[in-house]
Amino acid sequence: MPGSAIEDQLREIEARLILLEDERAIRQLISSYGPAVDSGRSGPAAELWTDDGVYDYKSLAEIGDGIRGEPLHKQAIVDMLEGSHHQRLIGEGAAHTLGPAVIDIAGDTAVATNYSVIFRRIGMSVTVYRLSANRWELIRTPRGWRARKRITRLLEGSGDARARLGQATTR
Amino acid sequence: MPGSAIEDQLREIEARLILLEDERAIRQLISSYGPAVDSGRSGPAAELWTDDGVYDYKSLAEIGDGIRGEPLHKQAIVDMLEGSHHQRLIGEGAAHTLGPAVIDIAGDTAVATNYSVIFRRIGMSVTVYRLSANRWELIRTPRGWRARKRITRLLEGSGDARARLGQATTR
Amino acid sequence: MPGSAIEDQLREIEARLILLEDERAIRQLISSYGPAVDSGRSGPAAELWTDDGVYDYKSLAEIGDGIRGEPLHKQAIVDMLEGSHHQRLIGEGAAHTLGPAVIDIAGDTAVATNYSVIFRRIGMSVTVYRLSANRWELIRTPRGWRARKRITRLLEGSGDARARLGQATTR
Repeated sequence: MPGSAIEDQLREIEARLILLEDERAIRQLISSYGPAVDSGRSGPAAELWTDDGVYDYKSLAEIGDGIRGEPLHKQAIVDMLEGSHHQRLIGEGAAHTLGPAVIDIAGDTAVATNYSVIFRRIGMSVTVYRLSANRWELIRTPRGWRARKRITRLLEGSGDARARLGQATTR
Repeated sequence: MPGSAIEDQLREIEARLILLEDERAIRQLISSYGPAVDSGRSGPAAELWTDDGVYDYKSLAEIGDGIRGEPLHKQAIVDMLEGSHHQRLIGEGAAHTLGPAVIDIAGDTAVATNYSVIFRRIGMSVTVYRLSANRWELIRTPRGWRARKRITRLLEGSGDARARLGQATTR
Repeated sequence: MPGSAIEDQLREIEARLILLEDERAIRQLISSYGPAVDSGRSGPAAELWTDDGVYDYKSLAEIGDGIRGEPLHKQAIVDMLEGSHHQRLIGEGAAHTLGPAVIDIAGDTAVATNYSVIFRRIGMSVTVYRLSANRWELIRTPRGWRARKRITRLLEGSGDARARLGQATTR
Protein backbone atom coordinates (compact mmCIF):
# COMPACT_ATOMS: atom_id res chain seq x y z
CA MET A 1 0.00 0.00 0.00
CA PRO A 2 1.51 3.40 -0.92
CA GLY A 3 2.01 5.95 1.84
CA SER A 4 -0.81 8.19 0.61
CA ALA A 5 -3.28 5.28 0.77
CA ILE A 6 -2.24 4.64 4.36
CA GLU A 7 -2.75 8.29 5.22
CA ASP A 8 -6.20 8.21 3.59
CA GLN A 9 -7.09 5.18 5.62
CA LEU A 10 -5.84 6.77 8.84
CA ARG A 11 -7.99 9.81 8.16
CA GLU A 12 -11.05 7.67 7.52
CA ILE A 13 -10.45 5.62 10.66
CA GLU A 14 -10.07 8.75 12.73
CA ALA A 15 -13.32 10.19 11.42
CA ARG A 16 -15.14 7.01 12.45
CA LEU A 17 -13.45 7.12 15.84
CA ILE A 18 -14.53 10.72 16.37
CA LEU A 19 -18.13 9.77 15.68
CA LEU A 20 -18.00 7.09 18.38
CA GLU A 21 -16.29 9.48 20.79
CA ASP A 22 -18.95 12.11 20.09
CA GLU A 23 -21.70 9.62 20.75
CA ARG A 24 -20.06 8.61 24.02
CA ALA A 25 -19.70 12.26 25.09
CA ILE A 26 -23.38 12.88 24.38
CA ARG A 27 -24.47 9.80 26.33
CA GLN A 28 -22.27 10.98 29.19
CA LEU A 29 -23.78 14.47 29.09
CA ILE A 30 -27.32 13.14 29.24
CA SER A 31 -26.50 10.64 32.00
CA SER A 32 -24.93 13.42 34.08
CA TYR A 33 -28.15 15.39 34.42
CA GLY A 34 -29.85 13.13 36.98
CA PRO A 35 -26.91 12.71 39.37
CA ALA A 36 -26.29 16.48 39.23
CA VAL A 37 -29.84 17.58 40.03
CA ASP A 38 -30.63 14.82 42.53
CA SER A 39 -27.48 15.60 44.52
CA GLY A 40 -28.35 19.30 44.51
CA ARG A 41 -25.43 20.36 42.33
CA SER A 42 -27.32 23.04 40.42
CA GLY A 43 -24.24 24.68 38.91
CA PRO A 44 -22.85 21.56 37.21
CA ALA A 45 -26.39 20.70 36.05
CA ALA A 46 -26.75 24.08 34.32
CA GLU A 47 -23.26 23.65 32.81
CA LEU A 48 -24.67 20.87 30.61
CA TRP A 49 -26.19 23.68 28.52
CA THR A 50 -24.42 26.27 26.35
CA ASP A 51 -24.38 29.80 27.74
CA ASP A 52 -27.42 30.69 25.64
CA GLY A 53 -29.01 27.25 25.95
CA VAL A 54 -32.61 26.70 27.10
CA TYR A 55 -34.58 24.06 28.94
CA ASP A 56 -38.04 24.09 27.47
CA TYR A 57 -40.48 22.17 29.60
CA LYS A 58 -44.02 22.59 30.74
CA SER A 59 -44.76 22.12 34.37
CA LEU A 60 -47.28 23.79 36.56
CA ALA A 61 -45.74 22.53 39.78
CA GLU A 62 -43.01 25.17 39.99
CA ILE A 63 -45.31 28.16 39.46
CA GLY A 64 -45.25 28.64 43.22
CA ASP A 65 -41.50 29.24 42.89
CA GLY A 66 -42.12 31.99 40.37
CA ILE A 67 -41.20 29.81 37.40
CA ARG A 68 -43.28 30.41 34.26
CA GLY A 69 -44.13 27.93 31.57
CA GLU A 70 -41.61 29.51 29.20
CA PRO A 71 -38.19 28.05 28.28
CA LEU A 72 -35.62 28.43 31.07
CA HIS A 73 -32.28 30.08 30.38
CA LYS A 74 -29.16 28.99 32.26
CA GLN A 75 -29.69 31.12 35.36
CA ALA A 76 -33.36 30.17 35.45
CA ILE A 77 -32.36 26.49 35.41
CA VAL A 78 -30.22 27.11 38.49
CA ASP A 79 -33.09 29.04 40.12
CA MET A 80 -35.54 26.25 39.40
CA LEU A 81 -33.15 23.65 40.86
CA GLU A 82 -32.58 25.76 43.96
CA GLY A 83 -36.26 26.58 44.31
CA SER A 84 -38.41 25.10 47.06
CA HIS A 85 -40.21 22.66 44.78
CA HIS A 86 -37.07 20.85 43.55
CA GLN A 87 -35.39 21.04 46.95
CA ARG A 88 -38.39 19.43 48.65
CA LEU A 89 -38.44 16.74 45.97
CA ILE A 90 -34.81 15.73 46.45
CA GLY A 91 -35.05 16.22 50.20
CA GLU A 92 -37.72 13.51 50.32
CA GLY A 93 -35.90 11.25 47.84
CA ALA A 94 -36.08 11.50 44.06
CA ALA A 95 -34.40 10.12 40.96
CA HIS A 96 -34.44 11.94 37.64
CA THR A 97 -33.69 8.94 35.44
CA LEU A 98 -32.93 9.39 31.73
CA GLY A 99 -33.04 6.32 29.54
CA PRO A 100 -30.86 5.31 26.57
CA ALA A 101 -31.20 7.84 23.74
CA VAL A 102 -31.50 7.62 19.99
CA ILE A 103 -28.58 9.87 18.97
CA ASP A 104 -28.25 11.41 15.53
CA ILE A 105 -24.93 13.21 14.99
CA ALA A 106 -24.23 15.45 11.98
CA GLY A 107 -20.81 17.09 12.26
CA ASP A 108 -20.88 19.61 15.08
CA THR A 109 -24.55 19.28 15.99
CA ALA A 110 -26.66 16.40 17.18
CA VAL A 111 -30.17 15.48 18.22
CA ALA A 112 -30.90 12.95 20.96
CA THR A 113 -34.31 11.56 21.89
CA ASN A 114 -35.14 9.65 25.03
CA TYR A 115 -37.58 9.14 27.91
CA SER A 116 -37.24 10.60 31.36
CA VAL A 117 -38.92 9.09 34.37
CA ILE A 118 -38.84 10.93 37.67
CA PHE A 119 -39.35 8.61 40.62
CA ARG A 120 -40.29 10.10 43.95
CA ARG A 121 -40.40 8.64 47.42
CA ILE A 122 -43.62 9.30 49.30
CA GLY A 123 -43.48 7.84 52.80
CA MET A 124 -42.62 4.17 52.48
CA SER A 125 -43.38 3.89 48.78
CA VAL A 126 -41.88 5.11 45.52
CA THR A 127 -44.12 6.49 42.80
CA VAL A 128 -43.64 7.62 39.21
CA TYR A 129 -43.90 11.38 39.53
CA ARG A 130 -43.39 12.36 35.87
CA LEU A 131 -43.09 10.53 32.59
CA SER A 132 -41.78 12.58 29.67
CA ALA A 133 -40.41 12.55 26.15
CA ASN A 134 -37.16 14.49 25.67
CA ARG A 135 -35.57 16.00 22.60
CA TRP A 136 -32.02 17.29 23.08
CA GLU A 137 -30.49 19.63 20.51
CA LEU A 138 -26.74 19.54 21.04
CA ILE A 139 -23.67 21.33 19.78
CA ARG A 140 -19.93 20.76 19.95
CA THR A 141 -18.22 23.59 21.86
CA PRO A 142 -14.58 24.18 22.83
CA ARG A 143 -15.51 22.68 26.24
CA GLY A 144 -17.17 19.60 24.71
CA TRP A 145 -20.75 18.80 23.75
CA ARG A 146 -23.45 20.95 25.33
CA ALA A 147 -27.24 21.25 25.05
CA ARG A 148 -28.53 24.23 23.12
CA LYS A 149 -32.08 23.18 23.80
CA ARG A 150 -33.76 20.46 25.77
CA ILE A 151 -37.45 20.04 25.11
CA THR A 152 -39.32 17.95 27.67
CA ARG A 153 -43.00 17.12 27.31
CA LEU A 154 -45.15 15.09 29.68
CA LEU A 155 -46.48 11.90 28.12
CA GLU A 156 -50.09 12.72 28.78
CA GLY A 157 -51.51 11.51 25.50
CA SER A 158 -51.34 14.93 23.84
CA GLY A 159 -49.84 15.26 20.40
CA ASP A 160 -46.97 17.37 21.69
CA ALA A 161 -44.91 14.69 23.43
CA ARG A 162 -45.69 12.21 20.67
CA ALA A 163 -44.49 14.63 18.00
CA ARG A 164 -41.10 14.91 19.79
CA LEU A 165 -40.74 11.15 19.89
CA GLY A 166 -41.77 10.82 16.26
CA GLN A 167 -38.88 13.03 15.18
CA ALA A 168 -36.37 10.56 16.64
CA THR A 169 -36.69 8.07 13.84
CA THR A 170 -37.12 10.47 10.96
CA ARG A 171 -34.59 12.83 9.29
CA MET B 1 7.78 -0.80 11.10
CA PRO B 2 7.58 -2.35 7.60
CA GLY B 3 4.62 -1.43 5.40
CA SER B 4 3.01 -4.85 5.74
CA ALA B 5 3.04 -4.57 9.54
CA ILE B 6 1.29 -1.21 9.26
CA GLU B 7 -1.33 -2.70 6.98
CA ASP B 8 -1.87 -5.56 9.43
CA GLN B 9 -2.34 -3.10 12.23
CA LEU B 10 -4.76 -1.01 10.19
CA ARG B 11 -6.82 -4.11 9.48
CA GLU B 12 -6.89 -5.05 13.15
CA ILE B 13 -7.86 -1.53 14.19
CA GLU B 14 -10.65 -1.46 11.65
CA ALA B 15 -12.04 -4.77 12.88
CA ARG B 16 -12.18 -3.40 16.43
CA LEU B 17 -13.80 -0.22 15.16
CA ILE B 18 -16.46 -2.20 13.31
CA LEU B 19 -17.34 -4.06 16.50
CA LEU B 20 -17.92 -0.76 18.32
CA GLU B 21 -19.93 0.60 15.40
CA ASP B 22 -22.04 -2.56 15.34
CA GLU B 23 -22.70 -2.27 19.05
CA ARG B 24 -23.73 1.35 18.61
CA ALA B 25 -26.06 0.47 15.73
CA ILE B 26 -27.71 -2.23 17.82
CA ARG B 27 -28.21 0.11 20.78
CA GLN B 28 -29.69 2.64 18.39
CA LEU B 29 -32.05 0.05 16.91
CA ILE B 30 -33.32 -1.00 20.33
CA SER B 31 -33.69 2.60 21.54
CA SER B 32 -35.72 3.47 18.44
CA TYR B 33 -38.53 1.08 19.25
CA GLY B 34 -40.15 3.12 22.04
CA PRO B 35 -40.18 6.51 20.28
CA ALA B 36 -41.57 4.83 17.14
CA VAL B 37 -44.46 3.01 18.79
CA ASP B 38 -45.33 5.74 21.31
CA SER B 39 -45.53 8.34 18.56
CA GLY B 40 -47.74 6.05 16.47
CA ARG B 41 -45.19 5.48 13.71
CA SER B 42 -46.08 1.85 13.11
CA GLY B 43 -44.22 1.55 9.80
CA PRO B 44 -40.79 2.65 11.11
CA ALA B 45 -41.35 0.46 14.18
CA ALA B 46 -41.92 -2.63 12.02
CA GLU B 47 -38.87 -1.68 9.91
CA LEU B 48 -36.68 -2.54 12.91
CA TRP B 49 -37.29 -6.17 11.96
CA THR B 50 -36.09 -8.09 8.89
CA ASP B 51 -38.75 -8.86 6.30
CA ASP B 52 -39.22 -12.32 7.79
CA GLY B 53 -38.62 -11.20 11.37
CA VAL B 54 -40.98 -11.97 14.23
CA TYR B 55 -42.02 -10.39 17.49
CA ASP B 56 -42.76 -13.20 19.87
CA TYR B 57 -44.59 -12.00 22.92
CA LYS B 58 -47.40 -13.22 25.07
CA SER B 59 -50.16 -10.85 25.91
CA LEU B 60 -53.82 -11.46 26.43
CA ALA B 61 -54.73 -7.78 26.24
CA GLU B 62 -54.77 -7.56 22.45
CA ILE B 63 -57.01 -10.59 21.91
CA GLY B 64 -59.89 -8.18 21.48
CA ASP B 65 -58.04 -6.78 18.46
CA GLY B 66 -57.88 -10.23 16.92
CA ILE B 67 -54.23 -10.72 17.87
CA ARG B 68 -53.32 -14.28 18.88
CA GLY B 69 -50.64 -15.37 21.29
CA GLU B 70 -48.42 -16.50 18.42
CA PRO B 71 -45.32 -14.69 17.11
CA LEU B 72 -46.20 -11.61 15.05
CA HIS B 73 -44.79 -11.21 11.55
CA LYS B 74 -44.04 -7.75 10.17
CA GLN B 75 -47.54 -6.94 8.97
CA ALA B 76 -49.03 -8.27 12.20
CA ILE B 77 -46.72 -5.94 14.16
CA VAL B 78 -48.14 -3.01 12.20
CA ASP B 79 -51.68 -4.32 12.78
CA MET B 80 -51.06 -4.66 16.51
CA LEU B 81 -49.66 -1.13 16.72
CA GLU B 82 -52.60 0.26 14.77
CA GLY B 83 -55.13 -1.79 16.73
CA SER B 84 -57.46 -0.23 19.25
CA HIS B 85 -55.58 -1.51 22.29
CA HIS B 86 -52.24 0.13 21.43
CA GLN B 87 -53.91 3.27 20.10
CA ARG B 88 -55.86 3.73 23.32
CA LEU B 89 -52.68 3.18 25.32
CA ILE B 90 -50.69 5.88 23.52
CA GLY B 91 -53.72 8.15 23.31
CA GLU B 92 -53.87 8.20 27.11
CA GLY B 93 -50.07 8.55 27.50
CA ALA B 94 -47.58 5.68 27.47
CA ALA B 95 -43.85 5.06 27.33
CA HIS B 96 -42.37 1.81 26.06
CA THR B 97 -38.98 2.16 27.74
CA LEU B 98 -36.16 -0.25 26.90
CA GLY B 99 -33.15 -0.32 29.21
CA PRO B 100 -29.45 -0.76 28.45
CA ALA B 101 -28.82 -4.17 26.88
CA VAL B 102 -26.16 -6.84 27.26
CA ILE B 103 -25.04 -7.17 23.64
CA ASP B 104 -23.14 -10.17 22.33
CA ILE B 105 -21.94 -9.75 18.73
CA ALA B 106 -20.51 -12.61 16.65
CA GLY B 107 -19.76 -11.47 13.10
CA ASP B 108 -23.03 -10.81 11.30
CA THR B 109 -25.36 -11.89 14.08
CA ALA B 110 -25.90 -10.69 17.61
CA VAL B 111 -28.00 -11.31 20.70
CA ALA B 112 -29.12 -8.51 22.99
CA THR B 113 -30.85 -8.91 26.35
CA ASN B 114 -32.62 -6.18 28.29
CA TYR B 115 -35.65 -5.18 30.33
CA SER B 116 -38.64 -3.33 29.02
CA VAL B 117 -40.93 -1.33 31.26
CA ILE B 118 -44.14 0.09 29.85
CA PHE B 119 -45.39 3.05 31.85
CA ARG B 120 -48.99 4.15 31.40
CA ARG B 121 -50.82 7.24 32.49
CA ILE B 122 -54.11 6.59 34.24
CA GLY B 123 -55.84 9.82 35.18
CA MET B 124 -53.40 11.89 37.23
CA SER B 125 -51.01 9.07 37.99
CA VAL B 126 -48.51 6.94 36.08
CA THR B 127 -48.36 3.19 36.66
CA VAL B 128 -46.09 0.37 35.55
CA TYR B 129 -48.24 -1.41 33.01
CA ARG B 130 -45.85 -4.19 31.97
CA LEU B 131 -42.47 -5.43 33.11
CA SER B 132 -40.71 -7.82 30.74
CA ALA B 133 -37.47 -9.56 29.84
CA ASN B 134 -36.42 -9.20 26.19
CA ARG B 135 -34.14 -11.28 24.02
CA TRP B 136 -33.29 -9.76 20.65
CA GLU B 137 -31.81 -11.96 17.91
CA LEU B 138 -30.24 -9.62 15.38
CA ILE B 139 -28.63 -9.83 11.95
CA ARG B 140 -26.58 -7.51 9.78
CA THR B 141 -28.44 -6.71 6.55
CA PRO B 142 -27.57 -4.45 3.60
CA ARG B 143 -29.75 -1.79 5.30
CA GLY B 144 -28.05 -2.18 8.67
CA TRP B 145 -28.77 -4.29 11.74
CA ARG B 146 -32.29 -5.65 12.04
CA ALA B 147 -34.18 -7.92 14.46
CA ARG B 148 -34.87 -11.42 13.23
CA LYS B 149 -36.65 -12.23 16.42
CA ARG B 150 -37.61 -10.35 19.54
CA ILE B 151 -38.82 -12.51 22.39
CA THR B 152 -40.59 -10.64 25.19
CA ARG B 153 -41.82 -12.36 28.33
CA LEU B 154 -43.63 -10.80 31.27
CA LEU B 155 -41.65 -10.97 34.50
CA GLU B 156 -44.34 -12.76 36.39
CA GLY B 157 -42.15 -15.19 38.29
CA SER B 158 -42.52 -17.96 35.71
CA GLY B 159 -39.44 -19.77 34.46
CA ASP B 160 -39.94 -18.45 30.93
CA ALA B 161 -38.85 -14.85 31.45
CA ARG B 162 -36.08 -15.94 33.79
CA ALA B 163 -34.72 -18.38 31.22
CA ARG B 164 -34.42 -15.56 28.67
CA LEU B 165 -32.50 -13.42 31.13
CA GLY B 166 -30.27 -16.33 32.10
CA GLN B 167 -29.09 -16.69 28.51
CA ALA B 168 -27.67 -13.15 28.55
CA THR B 169 -24.62 -14.01 30.57
CA THR B 170 -23.94 -17.43 29.11
CA ARG B 171 -22.45 -18.42 25.73
CA MET C 1 4.12 11.38 6.23
CA PRO C 2 7.27 9.61 7.49
CA GLY C 3 6.92 6.10 8.88
CA SER C 4 7.49 7.21 12.46
CA ALA C 5 4.64 9.74 12.23
CA ILE C 6 2.36 6.95 11.00
CA GLU C 7 3.40 4.76 13.91
CA ASP C 8 2.73 7.62 16.34
CA GLN C 9 -0.69 8.10 14.87
CA LEU C 10 -1.46 4.39 15.04
CA ARG C 11 -0.51 4.36 18.70
CA GLU C 12 -2.71 7.35 19.41
CA ILE C 13 -5.64 5.83 17.54
CA GLU C 14 -5.26 2.59 19.44
CA ALA C 15 -5.26 4.39 22.79
CA ARG C 16 -8.53 6.10 21.87
CA LEU C 17 -9.98 2.80 20.70
CA ILE C 18 -9.05 1.12 23.97
CA LEU C 19 -10.89 3.82 25.91
CA LEU C 20 -14.07 3.16 23.93
CA GLU C 21 -13.64 -0.60 24.36
CA ASP C 22 -13.16 -0.14 28.09
CA GLU C 23 -16.29 1.95 28.31
CA ARG C 24 -18.23 -0.69 26.42
CA ALA C 25 -16.92 -3.45 28.69
CA ILE C 26 -17.97 -1.49 31.78
CA ARG C 27 -21.46 -0.84 30.40
CA GLN C 28 -21.72 -4.54 29.62
CA LEU C 29 -20.62 -5.50 33.13
CA ILE C 30 -23.21 -3.24 34.75
CA SER C 31 -25.98 -4.37 32.39
CA SER C 32 -25.21 -8.01 33.20
CA TYR C 33 -26.07 -7.70 36.87
CA GLY C 34 -29.86 -7.60 36.51
CA PRO C 35 -30.24 -10.52 34.09
CA ALA C 36 -27.90 -12.59 36.28
CA VAL C 37 -29.69 -12.01 39.59
CA ASP C 38 -33.24 -12.07 38.21
CA SER C 39 -32.62 -15.39 36.48
CA GLY C 40 -31.16 -16.83 39.68
CA ARG C 41 -27.61 -17.18 38.33
CA SER C 42 -25.89 -16.23 41.58
CA GLY C 43 -22.44 -17.45 40.55
CA PRO C 44 -22.16 -15.33 37.37
CA ALA C 45 -23.59 -12.37 39.31
CA ALA C 46 -20.84 -12.62 41.95
CA GLU C 47 -18.24 -13.01 39.16
CA LEU C 48 -18.86 -9.37 38.24
CA TRP C 49 -16.75 -8.53 41.30
CA THR C 50 -13.03 -9.09 41.86
CA ASP C 51 -12.14 -11.89 44.27
CA ASP C 52 -11.79 -9.36 47.08
CA GLY C 53 -14.58 -7.11 45.82
CA VAL C 54 -17.46 -5.95 48.01
CA TYR C 55 -21.10 -5.00 47.56
CA ASP C 56 -21.82 -2.29 50.08
CA TYR C 57 -25.51 -1.70 50.46
CA LYS C 58 -27.88 -1.04 53.30
CA SER C 59 -31.01 -3.08 53.46
CA LEU C 60 -32.94 -4.29 56.44
CA ALA C 61 -35.04 -6.70 54.42
CA GLU C 62 -32.44 -9.48 54.30
CA ILE C 63 -31.74 -9.52 58.04
CA GLY C 64 -34.04 -12.50 58.31
CA ASP C 65 -31.62 -14.35 56.03
CA GLY C 66 -28.76 -13.61 58.41
CA ILE C 67 -27.38 -10.79 56.23
CA ARG C 68 -25.95 -7.84 58.17
CA GLY C 69 -25.77 -4.26 57.08
CA GLU C 70 -22.06 -4.55 56.39
CA PRO C 71 -20.42 -4.79 52.93
CA LEU C 72 -20.86 -8.21 51.35
CA HIS C 73 -17.85 -10.15 50.12
CA LYS C 74 -18.12 -12.43 47.11
CA GLN C 75 -19.45 -15.48 48.97
CA ALA C 76 -21.87 -13.32 50.93
CA ILE C 77 -23.22 -11.94 47.64
CA VAL C 78 -23.95 -15.49 46.52
CA ASP C 79 -25.53 -16.27 49.90
CA MET C 80 -27.71 -13.17 49.70
CA LEU C 81 -28.86 -14.06 46.18
CA GLU C 82 -29.62 -17.63 47.23
CA GLY C 83 -31.32 -16.53 50.43
CA SER C 84 -35.06 -16.74 50.92
CA HIS C 85 -35.66 -13.01 50.50
CA HIS C 86 -34.15 -12.72 47.02
CA GLN C 87 -35.55 -16.07 45.92
CA ARG C 88 -39.07 -15.06 46.91
CA LEU C 89 -38.61 -11.75 45.10
CA ILE C 90 -37.61 -13.34 41.79
CA GLY C 91 -40.09 -16.18 42.27
CA GLU C 92 -42.91 -13.61 42.30
CA GLY C 93 -41.43 -11.56 39.42
CA ALA C 94 -38.76 -8.88 39.77
CA ALA C 95 -36.46 -6.76 37.62
CA HIS C 96 -33.24 -5.28 38.96
CA THR C 97 -32.89 -2.54 36.33
CA LEU C 98 -29.70 -0.47 36.12
CA GLY C 99 -29.80 2.71 34.07
CA PRO C 100 -27.17 4.31 31.83
CA ALA C 101 -24.08 5.23 33.86
CA VAL C 102 -21.73 8.19 33.94
CA ILE C 103 -18.40 6.40 33.43
CA ASP C 104 -15.06 7.95 34.29
CA ILE C 105 -12.08 5.84 33.18
CA ALA C 106 -8.49 6.56 34.28
CA GLY C 107 -6.12 3.90 32.96
CA ASP C 108 -6.81 0.64 34.74
CA THR C 109 -9.46 1.91 37.13
CA ALA C 110 -12.84 3.51 36.62
CA VAL C 111 -15.81 4.90 38.49
CA ALA C 112 -19.37 4.52 37.23
CA THR C 113 -22.46 6.19 38.70
CA ASN C 114 -26.05 5.28 37.93
CA TYR C 115 -29.53 4.65 39.30
CA SER C 116 -31.01 1.27 40.05
CA VAL C 117 -34.71 0.66 40.18
CA ILE C 118 -36.03 -2.68 41.39
CA PHE C 119 -39.51 -3.40 40.11
CA ARG C 120 -41.55 -6.08 41.81
CA ARG C 121 -44.74 -7.82 40.84
CA ILE C 122 -47.35 -7.96 43.59
CA GLY C 123 -50.45 -9.80 42.45
CA MET C 124 -51.68 -8.17 39.26
CA SER C 125 -49.64 -4.99 39.62
CA VAL C 126 -46.00 -3.98 39.44
CA THR C 127 -44.54 -1.62 42.03
CA VAL C 128 -41.22 0.17 42.49
CA TYR C 129 -39.66 -1.80 45.29
CA ARG C 130 -36.36 0.09 45.65
CA LEU C 131 -34.85 3.22 44.18
CA SER C 132 -31.12 3.67 44.70
CA ALA C 133 -28.00 5.56 43.72
CA ASN C 134 -25.04 3.38 42.75
CA ARG C 135 -21.33 4.06 42.70
CA TRP C 136 -19.20 1.37 41.05
CA GLU C 137 -15.44 1.32 41.61
CA LEU C 138 -13.96 -0.82 38.86
CA ILE C 139 -10.60 -2.28 37.92
CA ARG C 140 -9.11 -3.90 34.83
CA THR C 141 -8.14 -7.51 35.57
CA PRO C 142 -6.66 -10.25 33.37
CA ARG C 143 -10.27 -11.51 32.97
CA GLY C 144 -11.63 -8.09 32.01
CA TRP C 145 -13.18 -5.25 34.03
CA ARG C 146 -14.53 -6.17 37.45
CA ALA C 147 -16.12 -4.31 40.37
CA ARG C 148 -13.90 -3.78 43.39
CA LYS C 149 -16.71 -2.06 45.19
CA ARG C 150 -20.34 -1.32 44.46
CA ILE C 151 -21.94 1.14 46.85
CA THR C 152 -25.74 1.25 46.70
CA ARG C 153 -27.79 3.68 48.77
CA LEU C 154 -31.56 4.02 48.88
CA LEU C 155 -32.78 7.38 47.60
CA GLU C 156 -34.65 8.21 50.74
CA GLY C 157 -33.72 11.87 50.95
CA SER C 158 -30.73 11.29 53.22
CA GLY C 159 -27.41 12.89 52.40
CA ASP C 160 -25.76 9.51 51.82
CA ALA C 161 -27.31 8.63 48.46
CA ARG C 162 -27.05 12.21 47.30
CA ALA C 163 -23.35 12.36 48.15
CA ARG C 164 -22.74 9.31 45.92
CA LEU C 165 -24.55 10.95 43.03
CA GLY C 166 -22.72 14.20 43.56
CA GLN C 167 -19.38 12.48 43.03
CA ALA C 168 -20.39 11.46 39.51
CA THR C 169 -19.90 14.88 38.00
CA THR C 170 -16.88 15.96 39.99
CA ARG C 171 -13.23 14.84 39.71
